[in-house]
Amino acid sequence: MEKLYIIKVGGNVIDDDKTLQKFLKDLSSLKTNKILVHGGGKVATEISKGLGIEAQMVDGRRITDTETLKIVTMVYGGLINKKVVSQLQSMNTNAIGLTGADANIMLASKRPVKNGIDYGFVGDVEKIEAAPLATLISSGLTPVIAPLTHDGKGNMLNTNADTVASTLAVALSKSFDVSLVYCFELKGVLQDINDKNSVISSIDTEKYGQLKQDGVIAKGMIPKMDNSFDAIKAGVKSVIICHADDIVSIVNQSEQAGTVLKA
Amino acid sequence: MEKLYIIKVGGNVIDDDKTLQKFLKDLSSLKTNKILVHGGGKVATEISKGLGIEAQMVDGRRITDTETLKIVTMVYGGLINKKVVSQLQSMNTNAIGLTGADANIMLASKRPVKNGIDYGFVGDVEKIEAAPLATLISSGLTPVIAPLTHDGKGNMLNTNADTVASTLAVALSKSFDVSLVYCFELKGVLQDINDKNSVISSIDTEKYGQLKQDGVIAKGMIPKMDNSFDAIKAGVKSVIICHADDIVSIVNQSEQAGTVLKA
Repeated sequence: MEKLYIIKVGGNVIDDDKTLQKFLKDLSSLKTNKILVHGGGKVATEISKGLGIEAQMVDGRRITDTETLKIVTMVYGGLINKKVVSQLQSMNTNAIGLTGADANIMLASKRPVKNGIDYGFVGDVEKIEAAPLATLISSGLTPVIAPLTHDGKGNMLNTNADTVASTLAVALSKSFDVSLVYCFELKGVLQDINDKNSVISSIDTEKYGQLKQDGVIAKGMIPKMDNSFDAIKAGVKSVIICHADDIVSIVNQSEQAGTVLKA
Repeated sequence: MEKLYIIKVGGNVIDDDKTLQKFLKDLSSLKTNKILVHGGGKVATEISKGLGIEAQMVDGRRITDTETLKIVTMVYGGLINKKVVSQLQSMNTNAIGLTGADANIMLASKRPVKNGIDYGFVGDVEKIEAAPLATLISSGLTPVIAPLTHDGKGNMLNTNADTVASTLAVALSKSFDVSLVYCFELKGVLQDINDKNSVISSIDTEKYGQLKQDGVIAKGMIPKMDNSFDAIKAGVKSVIICHADDIVSIVNQSEQAGTVLKA
């Protein structure tokens, strides 16, 4: 099977023009099949504020009401997605921007109210249509995916970008040898939270259990890691957690970088 | 060659939820290859106002400054495009939303300052990549195109939706038997501006000259008609000017409707 990298970047890369441009140049230099999944960033919050819409948060999560859904559809699907696509085009990467509604690639269902919390228009992915993505990749295109899905009833839904990346990775692992790369603000999973260079180079299921027991892998990181090991169990070859700056080293395996998760 | 309908709808259809839904249902019922090109509508103006950005107009045309470019990228490429795509998906039409930057389908150059007027980030189409569109159509997808292009240097550009439709029609006429359909607020080109039912069923180049001389075809209509006849000269089989309500009659040729322009 051919290799495919599914690379997720978040707000820390999207929010800063220079950081974004450097990252996209690095991405463009990679001679491999790839999909970029991007998160949201601060722009959505700024535009909400500009329009006088207050962000509602529950447990650190934004509640997606009707107005917020409009904002994220505009900002993620329009502003950020097309900024990334047009910049990639200028770097000779033939990008195509998509949401989950486009070509029906990600069908989701609106998250049910749980424990009295209504997250609003948040979508839990139900079904991935991998075939159109495989066709686009085979014809030399680089899909750039916004964290939006649809419910099949005419509504867009807001979906976590990490989840978008991992569900796509699992679905595409039937046709490709998929590596899922999460870019974040650190160099990898750290042995010592106070030492930014204490990157653990590799973690398997057993070691993961140990690291959780020892309290090395803490609260916020656990869902990301659980998700990653689930993806590996479901067919993804490897998951790499790294800094956006290290994407070239990781894909070209030119230098040791990031944390590799394996079965 | 296979038939392909390129259908353009403007703000009058986009702005009203019920009108849009009826139109998209009609579109979904058509068993033919199709591309939908949509215009902007009032939403962009409303959101600009909400954000305190005053629209600058010269000769009835919006000047696209940096802030306006962000708004149109968000609204046309995000909000409207994904609304249309998600609704079409709910009607079992496998739509895929695109701008000119996606798959590099429409490369444009920023309009030069002319007679002291700087239109800002407005793009004049330079080059159409028809191949990716043909591939999408062949795999059963319906492209939904927002009136946005890119300059190949990393910038999006605002481009008139009529022009997007006609340039796409010309480029695709090499691979398809293309009919270009402009939906607007009237039933067609009228013999008598005061009689909404006085639709001229067919106009050829000769008759067009006559109608202009007689003053039947007036100011605002002339650029649309000129564009249409240019498209016909360049390979488009026919151009139809009609009301959005009549799209089924026209495509299925079940009833006489609209004005057909022919060489």
